[in-house]
Amino acid sequence: MIAVLKHGTTPEQTEHLINWLKHMDLEVHVSEGKEMTVLGLVGDTSRVDMELLGSLEIVDTVKRVSEPFKQANRKFHPNDTIVDLGKVKIGGGYFAMIAGPCSVETEEQITDVANSVKQAGAAILRGGAYKPRTSPYSFQGLKEKGLELLLKAKKATGMPIITEIMDIRTLEYFEDVDIIQVGARNMQNFDMLQELGRTRKPILLKRGLANTLQELLMSAEYIMSEGNENIILCERGIRTYETYTRNTLDLSAVPVLHELTHLPVVVDPSHATGKAALVPSMAVAAAAAGADGIMIEVHNNPACALCDGAQSLTPEQFSEVFRRVQKVREALE
Amino acid sequence: MIAVLKHGTTPEQTEHLINWLKHMDLEVHVSEGKEMTVLGLVGDTSRVDMELLGSLEIVDTVKRVSEPFKQANRKFHPNDTIVDLGKVKIGGGYFAMIAGPCSVETEEQITDVANSVKQAGAAILRGGAYKPRTSPYSFQGLKEKGLELLLKAKKATGMPIITEIMDIRTLEYFEDVDIIQVGARNMQNFDMLQELGRTRKPILLKRGLANTLQELLMSAEYIMSEGNENIILCERGIRTYETYTRNTLDLSAVPVLHELTHLPVVVDPSHATGKAALVPSMAVAAAAAGADGIMIEVHNNPACALCDGAQSLTPEQFSEVFRRVQKVREALE
Amino acid sequence: MIAVLKHGTTPEQTEHLINWLKHMDLEVHVSEGKEMTVLGLVGDTSRVDMELLGSLEIVDTVKRVSEPFKQANRKFHPNDTIVDLGKVKIGGGYFAMIAGPCSVETEEQITDVANSVKQAGAAILRGGAYKPRTSPYSFQGLKEKGLELLLKAKKATGMPIITEIMDIRTLEYFEDVDIIQVGARNMQNFDMLQELGRTRKPILLKRGLANTLQELLMSAEYIMSEGNENIILCERGIRTYETYTRNTLDLSAVPVLHELTHLPVVVDPSHATGKAALVPSMAVAAAAAGADGIMIEVHNNPACALCDGAQSLTPEQFSEVFRRVQKVREALE
Amino acid sequence: MIAVLKHGTTPEQTEHLINWLKHMDLEVHVSEGKEMTVLGLVGDTSRVDMELLGSLEIVDTVKRVSEPFKQANRKFHPNDTIVDLGKVKIGGGYFAMIAGPCSVETEEQITDVANSVKQAGAAILRGGAYKPRTSPYSFQGLKEKGLELLLKAKKATGMPIITEIMDIRTLEYFEDVDIIQVGARNMQNFDMLQELGRTRKPILLKRGLANTLQELLMSAEYIMSEGNENIILCERGIRTYETYTRNTLDLSAVPVLHELTHLPVVVDPSHATGKAALVPSMAVAAAAAGADGIMIEVHNNPACALCDGAQSLTPEQFSEVFRRVQKVREALE
Repeated sequence: MIAVLKHGTTPEQTEHLINWLKHMDLEVHVSEGKEMTVLGLVGDTSRVDMELLGSLEIVDTVKRVSEPFKQANRKFHPNDTIVDLGKVKIGGGYFAMIAGPCSVETEEQITDVANSVKQAGAAILRGGAYKPRTSPYSFQGLKEKGLELLLKAKKATGMPIITEIMDIRTLEYFEDVDIIQVGARNMQNFDMLQELGRTRKPILLKRGLANTLQELLMSAEYIMSEGNENIILCERGIRTYETYTRNTLDLSAVPVLHELTHLPVVVDPSHATGKAALVPSMAVAAAAAGADGIMIEVHNNPACALCDGAQSLTPEQFSEVFRRVQKVREALE
Repeated sequence: MIAVLKHGTTPEQTEHLINWLKHMDLEVHVSEGKEMTVLGLVGDTSRVDMELLGSLEIVDTVKRVSEPFKQANRKFHPNDTIVDLGKVKIGGGYFAMIAGPCSVETEEQITDVANSVKQAGAAILRGGAYKPRTSPYSFQGLKEKGLELLLKAKKATGMPIITEIMDIRTLEYFEDVDIIQVGARNMQNFDMLQELGRTRKPILLKRGLANTLQELLMSAEYIMSEGNENIILCERGIRTYETYTRNTLDLSAVPVLHELTHLPVVVDPSHATGKAALVPSMAVAAAAAGADGIMIEVHNNPACALCDGAQSLTPEQFSEVFRRVQKVREALE
Repeated sequence: MIAVLKHGTTPEQTEHLINWLKHMDLEVHVSEGKEMTVLGLVGDTSRVDMELLGSLEIVDTVKRVSEPFKQANRKFHPNDTIVDLGKVKIGGGYFAMIAGPCSVETEEQITDVANSVKQAGAAILRGGAYKPRTSPYSFQGLKEKGLELLLKAKKATGMPIITEIMDIRTLEYFEDVDIIQVGARNMQNFDMLQELGRTRKPILLKRGLANTLQELLMSAEYIMSEGNENIILCERGIRTYETYTRNTLDLSAVPVLHELTHLPVVVDPSHATGKAALVPSMAVAAAAAGADGIMIEVHNNPACALCDGAQSLTPEQFSEVFRRVQKVREALE
Repeated sequence: MIAVLKHGTTPEQTEHLINWLKHMDLEVHVSEGKEMTVLGLVGDTSRVDMELLGSLEIVDTVKRVSEPFKQANRKFHPNDTIVDLGKVKIGGGYFAMIAGPCSVETEEQITDVANSVKQAGAAILRGGAYKPRTSPYSFQGLKEKGLELLLKAKKATGMPIITEIMDIRTLEYFEDVDIIQVGARNMQNFDMLQELGRTRKPILLKRGLANTLQELLMSAEYIMSEGNENIILCERGIRTYETYTRNTLDLSAVPVLHELTHLPVVVDPSHATGKAALVPSMAVAAAAAGADGIMIEVHNNPACALCDGAQSLTPEQFSEVFRRVQKVREALE
């Protein structure tokens, strides 16, 4: 971390600041120039409050040189994390397709879709039981009942399942869920992250609507700092001024995250684009960009879905996407 | 709500859709043109899932004409809501300054600031006990202990207090808190909103980092749909590409919200700008824009605050801001 | 186009408006509902000023159903446009790699890079002669001298060349340039677009920093409306709140533009990401997304470039990218 | 400027870099730490290409400490610039209201509006002759004919006039125009800026749709570096994800620009919000924020304007806004 002191700072003020920093167990290297004095801070700067330091009267600018995340940082853990679900693995060369409907509706529906996507190549079944909806008047999911149906589909097909948690008070119901999803709106629900960090469940952490990649990694750090290292990051589109797509899929997040962290990275083109017609090309592009997994909404009857049908593929379309994703992955091996 | 059907839709398909819509208790008005057919839907369209409707093969576009929020909607409740805290009121012509430190640190600190801001004109005391921090390694607030100290300051000064809730499982500790703040990161924590809707506590709902004003109103609707109508909306800056200020304060939110809803609107220039030097001019601008209240961070020793000092004013600076805000309000009466 | 009239509009007002619309050669279909009246406008609505119509006292909302662009619209021109540069073609199944340095510096430099990228598979040579720079104190390119050097490299290698125009008054110097590039900052320099529309030169039109895809197409329409149909669209990243990459590459632009228009679409991962390390994965992702071409900055000595070296590949790196792009394209055929 | 070298840089590499920097007439201060080496660069760093420096293999980060703008920088010119139009002045305590129609339509129209706004308190008349329009099929202004009509209104009322230039080739027609406006879309049309820098005409420079305040100042620097110091900056809203208003008015730009530069700052609430109903409150808020002028669209018959009527006030409404702006300014004196 670097602190640039203002022109005109007195030697007493500088010394006072340096002493304060040394009390925080930091080494301080002073570089005095004609127009400014630069302090180089070495040590565990992840605990230093940049905003506080920057607020001091004599400080002009504070710049962080090292990243504030540690357990998620590839620099300190060079090897890829592999999230292990038993038969299925994600990360470190293991790739998985996640597919299923937006919402769990009936036993027949979820089991049918599960069978379809399994046959088409999906390794993990997704399905929403608790649904975050902008309006209190929209369908909010079947909740506990939906979880039950999803577990039946898991039993019927042998597929591991992923589903979203919205309220940490419902955690007990997720015991047999293989991956707990934290949705974009909860990416900075810090108390939930810490609680999930106390479990050893694999967590799929979605990037928030308007969160930077560094913030995403800091949220992963919240989970990891409590001991849970089974984290999968998920790029699902960010909010921009463009209105043609629901969100703007930021595929450069894949190589950036692979550079910064050892955690696996999954892409969700369905929520990112909000349009079924765009999902196939964005799925193959995600595979080409190096994603460790792709999560796609699939429905056996898109026209009649209770929600979000606009972004769902049919099982046949998904099967074709799977085939093309495989081809791209093989070509790039 | 309007649904535009694609060119080439058959009469049978159109009829099928119309029947489905009628089953949802909507009146359907059909307008057939050469290039398209337009369906006008009349009735309680707030329960219609626009995305589902738009996903149907034969539907080109769906446009909502009426707003999806009802209880928060000024059209249905023309009179301003006044949130009543006993001696202090907000909304409907009542204006309140909210001031206090970012974090509660010690009994002396919070009581000192409380006395200072009270004398300077503040009506409500703010202070963070639970602090949302991007990093798990940053100071997270004194939590329950902080709430206790805040309540002592309330007792000592007689000021009503506002503080943020981060985890709905801590709700029991907020019994004597006058206004519960929902932070920007929890604006779409829907389970928390519903639970707060079951209380009758005044709620200050902050706009999310990247949420539209309509989404803010839909979140207010979540609280109101459970029966709690004591809501204060808060504009606190949105995330844009500009990096000079922490966020971009969207002051047009004030007149827009006053047009769309009857709920009072408060502005937080401290968090929006992140710089103490910008707070005074943005506070008077907020007053000029018609805000029902302004929330300002004040610290008795900005240089030594444990967090966020960069955006805090001294009590003297706050006093001057208060004086100028009053002058502007008088000039515009 | 649809205009929704406000509740309470009188029959006289409605009739007055309808007459006015009919004078603009539009057919007007009226659909009267209990809560609102909807006018469906059929005809050449691209010339209707939506904002003006929306400003009328009696009008609640105006929604455009058909796109405002016509010559660029795939609906009216279903076949892909192929931009023909003689030996090289772009669009309609023809794919081209464009490569070269950010700035033309010396004859040796540009000819060396040209030979390198030609050998590595590039079909078109890029190189900046006029450079748009944020600061007036930065290197602004060799200008006319740079164009001369670029033309020498064209002669030496036989490669068609592309370079940016910044001032329409320099158009005469572009006679032997094969593709004239309009930079992101000039995407809405309408007078320049019209002037370029009066030539028959192929134009590569870059998406503006914060422009929607519809605005990009409207700018293409400016050129086409003057008679020049040789347009290549270019996605080069948009400005968002994320700061890790220079811009956010919006790869969904590729399938969206292919759906909306018949014009070829090229992707520039170098300017989008601003980091050489991200270019290879974004280039293959662009190919997977269906781009008709990819434009990449290549330098024979990245560490010593006069500008933008951070985003340039070496010829060896470019050669490897080319190989991987080819593999992905073959896999997806 | 600070350059942080990567861990593992050899002494030879460091020395090589330092020599290169010294050749650029910079003093280099070296601060070696355990984990990194920091170079402090002192001298005229505005000419250093940050991106080039950052691209070097051994460089981890480059941070600019001093602003890259010099002539526009308040640090070097502490006194406010006053732009002098004869009877009217802007900046340094002088405040001016600018009002008039979006487009000049007829002699009667522009003279009528001019008389109305003059009587209501406006000091400067605005009116568009050349109109930047997204669509080539929309009304593009009366061009030279519009300029003539505007000059007639100037003569009739004695008001100085402001109007936008879109194509530098039309500069000769602006001889009697008092302030030349550079629109948001041309803020980074660098050749135009330089050409305008060679005149001594007052220039009103609008902030681009998605440009930072620093970029706005760099564009002012382009004009100033050619010798023209008569520049007025204008905040007119930026593009964000919010769709209720046309743009998001960034009023914090006013105090920020006043801190960073000595140039006067004007606010345009009409284009920023796009809605007449929001203009009055945003105008008084701009005055409260310390704007040196406010530019408002006024029309004598909003419902029949040829363009942009939605954001225009009637003369009566403008008169009321003027009155309130004056009151706020007096209250804050």
